[in-house]
Amino acid sequence: MNTTDKNSTGEKIVTAAILVIGDEILSGRTQDTNSSHIARWLGEAGIRLSEIRVVPDVQAEIVAALNALRTRYSYVFTTGGIGPTHDDITADAVAAAFAVPIGYHPGAMAILAAHYKPGEFTEARKRMARIPEGAQLIDNPISKAPGFVIENVFVLAGVPMIMQAMLDSLRHRVTGGAKMLSASVGGAVAEGHVAGALGELQSRFPEVSLGSYPFFRRAEPGTDQVSSHGVNFVLRSTNAERLDQAREAVRAMIRAEGVEPEDRD
Amino acid sequence: MNTTDKNSTGEKIVTAAILVIGDEILSGRTQDTNSSHIARWLGEAGIRLSEIRVVPDVQAEIVAALNALRTRYSYVFTTGGIGPTHDDITADAVAAAFAVPIGYHPGAMAILAAHYKPGEFTEARKRMARIPEGAQLIDNPISKAPGFVIENVFVLAGVPMIMQAMLDSLRHRVTGGAKMLSASVGGAVAEGHVAGALGELQSRFPEVSLGSYPFFRRAEPGTDQVSSHGVNFVLRSTNAERLDQAREAVRAMIRAEGVEPEDRD
Repeated sequence: MNTTDKNSTGEKIVTAAILVIGDEILSGRTQDTNSSHIARWLGEAGIRLSEIRVVPDVQAEIVAALNALRTRYSYVFTTGGIGPTHDDITADAVAAAFAVPIGYHPGAMAILAAHYKPGEFTEARKRMARIPEGAQLIDNPISKAPGFVIENVFVLAGVPMIMQAMLDSLRHRVTGGAKMLSASVGGAVAEGHVAGALGELQSRFPEVSLGSYPFFRRAEPGTDQVSSHGVNFVLRSTNAERLDQAREAVRAMIRAEGVEPEDRD
Repeated sequence: MNTTDKNSTGEKIVTAAILVIGDEILSGRTQDTNSSHIARWLGEAGIRLSEIRVVPDVQAEIVAALNALRTRYSYVFTTGGIGPTHDDITADAVAAAFAVPIGYHPGAMAILAAHYKPGEFTEARKRMARIPEGAQLIDNPISKAPGFVIENVFVLAGVPMIMQAMLDSLRHRVTGGAKMLSASVGGAVAEGHVAGALGELQSRFPEVSLGSYPFFRRAEPGTDQVSSHGVNFVLRSTNAERLDQAREAVRAMIRAEGVEPEDRD
């Protein structure tokens, strides 16, 4: 089921995808910050985030995306849609994707019953104890309603503070591979000047991924005048020694343009 | 090829997807802000953003995702990967997805040749004039290297300032449907208290989408103590009259909790 590959040097590659469930992201009303948080957390764990999908609060869309992702990547992390209201349909969608029944989880019921005052554990709140069969709970230290993990899929809250707290507890539940190391060097050079040299560097360092990210700033709001520009070069590799050598080569490439390189890390 | 549906009341539904091409987003190093900008722009144009995918700088991944999205949605917007360096592979991937040749576009060559000083129009920069056959250019007022549109796919830069400038010029090149209107009302209520009433409201207003988004704030950094919480209710509909009625009903629902509702727009 999981795709745990090895790269060309025999290192284990562990992959992940994020499935963001949320009309509020697709409307542009809310900026998704969960994905970049999870991305960095995965990087620390030696897991490569390979795809992100954002889908609406529609069961068929969630099921199709989840089944595409969970069969392809080592892990999938979903965010959003596990609250008590009618638009919280993630648990049902996950159960449908795995074709397993869903019902009130005794452990989740106990956590929520203990959390609310007598009479406050409403029918709506009981919805948050509906967990697909075979799933294990993920602790929610903030508002108590748990997330859950089923096979390789981690189902997390959408509220960033709760999502982050859930993620904090999961480090021991994932197994990473070779950790991706990174370095970044910037300089006020023109991308079109160094592109040839950079391509040659990429050929010399096949085990280092060399990315080139130009930056521009508007001189004054509302104008198209550019006040300053340059390029940040990002190097990524599982091989620390080759990464250092490639970084030194990038620095030399920038100096050859008459510009002093700046380490960005 | 395009999916232009009608909804239950016969309104034309025009859909879109965003394909973000970028290792730097998947590494968590860069926060993607382009998607929410495009999402709001689409909303203004009466187009519904229905899916976002983020894929790495790998041609096979870009081709597969683009072909999945362009056959399903009215429009697709891609961001990233159109610069002069070896990691800029979007134009080639788009040509491969459409199975058309790619070569130096005379118009793009002319724009770039006029922009650079003599001797500065390097081979690397000429790469930015490689455009799939049959595509039309999209003006780039910032750094000149154009984007392009081919059939229903708009290929934009990844640098936010350039992406936004390109998007500004595209309003007349898309045709929207019924415009999605929205309203938002918040209050310091508990989601689990109002979930039942909210579900009933959703049944009474099937033409209005009712979303419920709890918010929490940490009392002090590093603790799990919550200082305040409440819920923002977001209403979306193409029917202004029903939207107003539903907003009034949500206000009444909040007042029934003994809380004064706050309009968020």
